[in-house]
Amino acid sequence: MRDDDSSSSFDSRGVRIDWDALVSPRTAGRVSKLGTETAFAVSAEATAFAALGHHVYPFHIGDLNFATPPNIVEASLRALKDGKTGYCPNAGIPILKEAVANEVNASRGLDYRAENVAVQPGGKPVIGKFLLTLMNPGDEVLYPNPGFPIYESQIEFHGGVAVPYRFVESATGFEIDLEALERSITPRTRLLILNDLQNPLGAECSPQEFERLSEIVSQHDLWVLSDEAYFDVRYSGTSTSFASIADMARRTVILYTFSKRFAMTGWRLGAALGPRSVIDVIATLNVNDESCTNHFVQYGGVEALTGDQTEPRRIVSVLKERRDAALKILRATPGVRCYEPRGTFYLFPNVTEAMRIKGFEDVDDFRREVLRETGVSVCSRTHFGRPQVDEDQHYVRFAYSGIEVDQIVEGLERFRSYLDLSTAAS
Amino acid sequence: MRDDDSSSSFDSRGVRIDWDALVSPRTAGRVSKLGTETAFAVSAEATAFAALGHHVYPFHIGDLNFATPPNIVEASLRALKDGKTGYCPNAGIPILKEAVANEVNASRGLDYRAENVAVQPGGKPVIGKFLLTLMNPGDEVLYPNPGFPIYESQIEFHGGVAVPYRFVESATGFEIDLEALERSITPRTRLLILNDLQNPLGAECSPQEFERLSEIVSQHDLWVLSDEAYFDVRYSGTSTSFASIADMARRTVILYTFSKRFAMTGWRLGAALGPRSVIDVIATLNVNDESCTNHFVQYGGVEALTGDQTEPRRIVSVLKERRDAALKILRATPGVRCYEPRGTFYLFPNVTEAMRIKGFEDVDDFRREVLRETGVSVCSRTHFGRPQVDEDQHYVRFAYSGIEVDQIVEGLERFRSYLDLSTAAS
Repeated sequence: MRDDDSSSSFDSRGVRIDWDALVSPRTAGRVSKLGTETAFAVSAEATAFAALGHHVYPFHIGDLNFATPPNIVEASLRALKDGKTGYCPNAGIPILKEAVANEVNASRGLDYRAENVAVQPGGKPVIGKFLLTLMNPGDEVLYPNPGFPIYESQIEFHGGVAVPYRFVESATGFEIDLEALERSITPRTRLLILNDLQNPLGAECSPQEFERLSEIVSQHDLWVLSDEAYFDVRYSGTSTSFASIADMARRTVILYTFSKRFAMTGWRLGAALGPRSVIDVIATLNVNDESCTNHFVQYGGVEALTGDQTEPRRIVSVLKERRDAALKILRATPGVRCYEPRGTFYLFPNVTEAMRIKGFEDVDDFRREVLRETGVSVCSRTHFGRPQVDEDQHYVRFAYSGIEVDQIVEGLERFRSYLDLSTAAS
Repeated sequence: MRDDDSSSSFDSRGVRIDWDALVSPRTAGRVSKLGTETAFAVSAEATAFAALGHHVYPFHIGDLNFATPPNIVEASLRALKDGKTGYCPNAGIPILKEAVANEVNASRGLDYRAENVAVQPGGKPVIGKFLLTLMNPGDEVLYPNPGFPIYESQIEFHGGVAVPYRFVESATGFEIDLEALERSITPRTRLLILNDLQNPLGAECSPQEFERLSEIVSQHDLWVLSDEAYFDVRYSGTSTSFASIADMARRTVILYTFSKRFAMTGWRLGAALGPRSVIDVIATLNVNDESCTNHFVQYGGVEALTGDQTEPRRIVSVLKERRDAALKILRATPGVRCYEPRGTFYLFPNVTEAMRIKGFEDVDDFRREVLRETGVSVCSRTHFGRPQVDEDQHYVRFAYSGIEVDQIVEGLERFRSYLDLSTAAS
């Protein structure tokens, strides 16, 4: 590493490398379509604010502040010490593929075999691999918006047309606007991305929504990516996989991840499950993209699924305490309307009235003032896909996966006071 | 998992899922262009042959039968126990990016900073990410053939035109056919993939070849992927990076991997290095594709680069013993011509005459008979890209990374006898 801060230096022959005089990289056209997780910009703002000596309540962070359960750590340590350090099968070690199939079958009433599973370095790789396998350039893909921003990015990066579907706020939560979704279908529509339970809304489909969606999918001969990242992070009721709806397994790929349930975000372990016709292609993409997922980590995954479940259950119960604490205050906060999601670790309150009270029209201006005035750092609706043209309600996302109850209470009380005082003054 | 072997079964509602009556997956057009590592078929043949009770000498396997050095294992264990299990920065932890930059700068006389490094889950992901960043559909990409088969696969899968360049066998090894390479350049040629030291040939460029290549690259304004997977697996002389040639760093992306030097193939740890204009895009592809590389594994990478080098050096010295043992017998084998590569763990003998002696025209027929008659399992030229139209010489690849000296000697003596007897008989 050079020790000065200049942008030019010397190569091995003493020839100056002038990095500023870069050869134009002529990046490919698709790069202009590449999105990212813009929430990282929120992290940067929070970090900069904290660096000034302010206390920050990190509600913008979607990572978990739990240790991975020790039995999972131990199983992976054992595998590492046992020399599971060479290549393994591209689609994953057989024992893990079988464990994932068993787990998904038991929890979702399905009937996958090991050959229906392709292990991945995380859940996220399933998004791109699903699209590369099934989407031709120009194909239209229905995706949730607001939703995980990588859907939009990957659809467009790989030449598809990202067609957003929306949610309507009801008395009890959010529902997919199925009529609008159906109206947006054209002869070029090929794929549907579902994320139930949903980031950032915490929404989930009712049996009626699933039923209607499955009719639409059959009628228009769509294939479905069912992103089930939060399937096991729920506090009441039972999660349902779209693949469990009659006849849908044959046209659905499930995105499975170890990240949330087992506090394994940094391990990068997940899987795609689906019909062999698609899973075989995804396994070949594994050969092309990364050969295989880390070998010894996969033994941790086996232990996660087959070992003691005390700690994963404790994680969910702690998350529930956090949800309850956050919700209680938010519901007492002027100008804020927040429904109770039964899962995920997100709250997505409507802050339209709060913004009106404070005189804001732009939700990110509001978000930044909240940070400055209270230390509470959140993402806004704008970090979850391009806002649709006729939106008139404003939302922010509180993630409580990385913040303790006492900090939740302290931070949200400051947020409430900030709006309470305004109400009193107005 | 179901316990019968039928292809239909029941979903959660008792409705039969008939996997055979699959919905046509309408896979995307690009899937027809997707290649793979066809060498896996050789593994399957060897396994089947061994299952019949035969002894197999696994010269087809490019993996290493060495344990990862214990200090690397320990560093990763410590990080895992220390809770490095959450997300980390998309382009890698700063200390690893700095260690990779330092290592590459010291060994190659270059001057990268941490910001020029994007950590990856292996070296292989750099291939696809380089192409997605710099290659438009229809762009022509020069790639080595015979060569690592994923180049051809990824170029074509992502819509490029794969234009092979060839090697000519000289008295001392293989040289790139630079005249033919230059003749194949058109106005659509944008990229060049180099792999020096090379799989499967073991070839490396002379200073004159590098110089001429750099002139061609400048003249035609190409960008270069320099796959340096075997840079540190060498027995004499010094490796050179194409990025070290004057003016080339500004248009070169280096593929760096921990896999070979540190016997870490199953860890999946590597990096892309290059100008920030490209590395920043590759880091954004990390956000999209896999979020980040396994967090605690990266601490193992830091130890690999900055810790004790005794074991990595021992690995190379053992590989050298294997090369010498294999080469000695191959050079005494009738109909086989084999030059001495100074690095990699491959030998790529010309077996044209051996095939003539045995009456074979197809190199894979020859390969299969060698397996049946001697137990020696190898890959052939056909596993390293589509053979070019006018090839008249035949080659097989012996990998000695996963087989001990005594087995090398025993296996290759059987191979020699197989051809010796034929010579005597003919």
